[in-house]
Amino acid sequence: MKKQRASTAITPTRAENYPEWFQQVVRAADLAESSPVRGCMVIKPWGYAIWENIQRLLDGMFRETGHKNAYFPLFIPKSFLEKEAKHVKGFVKECAVVTHHRLEENSEGELVPAGKLEEPLIVRPTSETIIGDSFSRWISSYRDLPILINQWANVVRWELRPRLFLRTTEFLWQEGHTAHATAEEALAETHTIHGIYARFAEEFMALPVIKGEKTPAERFPGAERTFSIEAMMQDRKALQAGTSHFLGQNFSKAQKIRFLDDTGKQKYAWTTSWGVSTRLVGALVMAHSDDNGLVLPPRLAPAHIVILPILFKSDRPDLILEHCQKLKDALQELKFGDRNVEVEIDNRELRGGEKAWSWIKKGVPIRVEIGPRDMASDSVFLARRDQAPHEKRSLPTGEFLETVTCILTEIQDGLMERARRLRSENTQILNSRASFYEFFKDSQGGSGAGGFALAHWSGDETIAEQVQKDLQVTIRCIPLDDNEGGGGGAGTCIFSGQPSPQRVVWAKAY
Amino acid sequence: MKKQRASTAITPTRAENYPEWFQQVVRAADLAESSPVRGCMVIKPWGYAIWENIQRLLDGMFRETGHKNAYFPLFIPKSFLEKEAKHVKGFVKECAVVTHHRLEENSEGELVPAGKLEEPLIVRPTSETIIGDSFSRWISSYRDLPILINQWANVVRWELRPRLFLRTTEFLWQEGHTAHATAEEALAETHTIHGIYARFAEEFMALPVIKGEKTPAERFPGAERTFSIEAMMQDRKALQAGTSHFLGQNFSKAQKIRFLDDTGKQKYAWTTSWGVSTRLVGALVMAHSDDNGLVLPPRLAPAHIVILPILFKSDRPDLILEHCQKLKDALQELKFGDRNVEVEIDNRELRGGEKAWSWIKKGVPIRVEIGPRDMASDSVFLARRDQAPHEKRSLPTGEFLETVTCILTEIQDGLMERARRLRSENTQILNSRASFYEFFKDSQGGSGAGGFALAHWSGDETIAEQVQKDLQVTIRCIPLDDNEGGGGGAGTCIFSGQPSPQRVVWAKAY
Repeated sequence: MKKQRASTAITPTRAENYPEWFQQVVRAADLAESSPVRGCMVIKPWGYAIWENIQRLLDGMFRETGHKNAYFPLFIPKSFLEKEAKHVKGFVKECAVVTHHRLEENSEGELVPAGKLEEPLIVRPTSETIIGDSFSRWISSYRDLPILINQWANVVRWELRPRLFLRTTEFLWQEGHTAHATAEEALAETHTIHGIYARFAEEFMALPVIKGEKTPAERFPGAERTFSIEAMMQDRKALQAGTSHFLGQNFSKAQKIRFLDDTGKQKYAWTTSWGVSTRLVGALVMAHSDDNGLVLPPRLAPAHIVILPILFKSDRPDLILEHCQKLKDALQELKFGDRNVEVEIDNRELRGGEKAWSWIKKGVPIRVEIGPRDMASDSVFLARRDQAPHEKRSLPTGEFLETVTCILTEIQDGLMERARRLRSENTQILNSRASFYEFFKDSQGGSGAGGFALAHWSGDETIAEQVQKDLQVTIRCIPLDDNEGGGGGAGTCIFSGQPSPQRVVWAKAY
Repeated sequence: MKKQRASTAITPTRAENYPEWFQQVVRAADLAESSPVRGCMVIKPWGYAIWENIQRLLDGMFRETGHKNAYFPLFIPKSFLEKEAKHVKGFVKECAVVTHHRLEENSEGELVPAGKLEEPLIVRPTSETIIGDSFSRWISSYRDLPILINQWANVVRWELRPRLFLRTTEFLWQEGHTAHATAEEALAETHTIHGIYARFAEEFMALPVIKGEKTPAERFPGAERTFSIEAMMQDRKALQAGTSHFLGQNFSKAQKIRFLDDTGKQKYAWTTSWGVSTRLVGALVMAHSDDNGLVLPPRLAPAHIVILPILFKSDRPDLILEHCQKLKDALQELKFGDRNVEVEIDNRELRGGEKAWSWIKKGVPIRVEIGPRDMASDSVFLARRDQAPHEKRSLPTGEFLETVTCILTEIQDGLMERARRLRSENTQILNSRASFYEFFKDSQGGSGAGGFALAHWSGDETIAEQVQKDLQVTIRCIPLDDNEGGGGGAGTCIFSGQPSPQRVVWAKAY
């Protein structure tokens, strides 16, 4: 007899085809969809609500550290982008160019672009240059510094191989831009934000990250130093989940962001920029979801609990609904993290199984079913998204109310623990070129990458280029904490035998 | 002897030059500035914080009425705009057109647009067509209806005569888009939102508005009916502060938004759209501010209270600052409206007068000064933004804490009352063409318009066109409540002698 395959809500499974599984989870959870505009996505209500939770929490962290929100133009004159040579080079190949400001009928009655602009406008791929222009007007004395600004906005980077959330032509993000009197202060700001991003990933996304610095070849165009947080997805690939850039005086010199110091001397300011985007939603999906769909960390879930009234066996469905509404009200009085518990009641006319599965696929942390018998015994039938779909248990309502926020915390911590285990099981210290190539060999063309390799590297970029060519593996970062790179400090490059200051993190990456 | 002109913080005054006064208030309050991108503004932190308050409050009202947020692409394919004939006509003359997706060096080393798009993309001037495309995929059965979506986004309408907040090429807004099974439901939705906008204007902006319907010539391009709220500014011009459109089946037919009803018959859905924008911030400025700068309704003020420590006379400034911090903490425990009281302490190294004036210009509702003597007597020296700058009084700290939220409510209500009085003093029922022309005559070329004229009109658009040509006066709306048009129901058109169903509101407008 053929062994029956365990049925899952998502086809294919992670093991069968990870990239396709990702697309199917996004679709099954109703997070987003492709749009008729190449590379641009529609973020549906459930996906957008996750982004709003990310926004609210990060926004609070930025405010606590003295940042203020503002808004700058969507369009950047071409000449602005050109002011910083490396910067423009980084974006010319992928920018949407506005060349006209109206449409008009041609002789064949067809609407064609008209009103040609003297200077083309670029739809912002990032806003260093347009915000720097404001800074150059806002800053004249050391008393005006620091300036700590954040913007929530859409940006456009033309994408030839788009992928929902991970790589889209238009995406939503926040971009911080700050100016300081000294290099030390600017660098300290860069680190503050780097720390906020890491804390956000770990506390709210349940995503363990390595804090590190990018190699020169991987820096943001125009930056002197770029710091990132790197997380491991379930296919063992790395995903860069946030970057913080120390821009030195590159942009302030290009844009004349100057101030008089307290001795009356004119100086250039030191600037930083930093951002995270809707890519985080993609990271969330890839880090925690399973073969039954999305799994949401409770801290970011749009709803913590869904109540499913079981009406078909009852002769008084109205009483059950009333009972569910009371439970919802009681639950919504409870605090969980920075907000109250959020509850949905699903009383759609759907079969019970279909209904429950729709919420499993959407990743809601806790489901409770309430039918006539549960009501009679004043209990709930409870299921957790971090357990198997059919693992349910009956719990007295009182006990449920007393323990529900603990269960949410348990789910949050459990996801973190699982992600940590995945990473540690798939991270290896490698001390030879042969073992390094062996580590990544199996993943050639397959869906599972080797994981994170911690290996010494001399700093020679040509080596990194060769490794990328051979294995599609890149240096994700130089960990700030040497222990995250395997520890032990200096050593010998496994590729060249040259000295290496410390091990770096290698992986395939999104 | 020459009578000395009372000195004001803003030059010119409202009476001297209203449009220029507006620009100067926006600048003095640090709300926004023009950018190097023609027609696009930079919204500075103080201005953006007002917009964030508007967003939070409206967003809550939309949620309470069952709407969900989502996000749709910035770009609209030209062919999409063309699907609804009237719609495209309304926007072709003012749209930003993306024609290329990269820049590349030409033979002279200059960066020029490259990668020409097969079909030009329009930067969204509004999103009916791109959202309608999603709706056509999301909706298949009557069970999928209604769909109630809102989007917070930036939009672009090319503006040849831009003006901060009031008329900018790029602006921020919310746009609601809904689809319903019946015309009645869609119309009810249109009215619900119209009501939310009116309530928001009155309760939070302290802005009395007339709820009315637009005449056919003034409808949104593609709408069957457009409803608006109309407010009077201090120069007696009208400002349209929000619109709600019943789109009938125009867009659903153009985009095949269809569903099977409960008998299995295929039908077209009925859709609505509605929006308010950063223009509301401009309305706020023009409605309440005075010759000393911005005056903010407390419900929308980024900070309710500023504490100004007076340090120069003290030998222990540290104690004063500590005392101020304690007061701030105590104040921030208090609830006002949907949030806690927000307080700033200004301890910049500035002269006291200069410091106080900077907050007067920024419109903060309450200022308290605290020096050594106030501290010794445990009192505060209090000034209200709705009173003259030098009208201050000493108040025991305890009493201040007990009454401060009442004072904020008093200021909020006082602004509403003042705006109501302005409007009623400058609104006239006019029953002849001669008195109508007389009412608006004085304002020819001057800065002060006549106000709101309530007059009968037959419905003949050519009359409206003539009046606009003669006086730059237009029909703002047909009031839903006939009493707001002067009452009395049907009558005779004052221009043509033809029958008129009711009086309509005429005014010059922004």
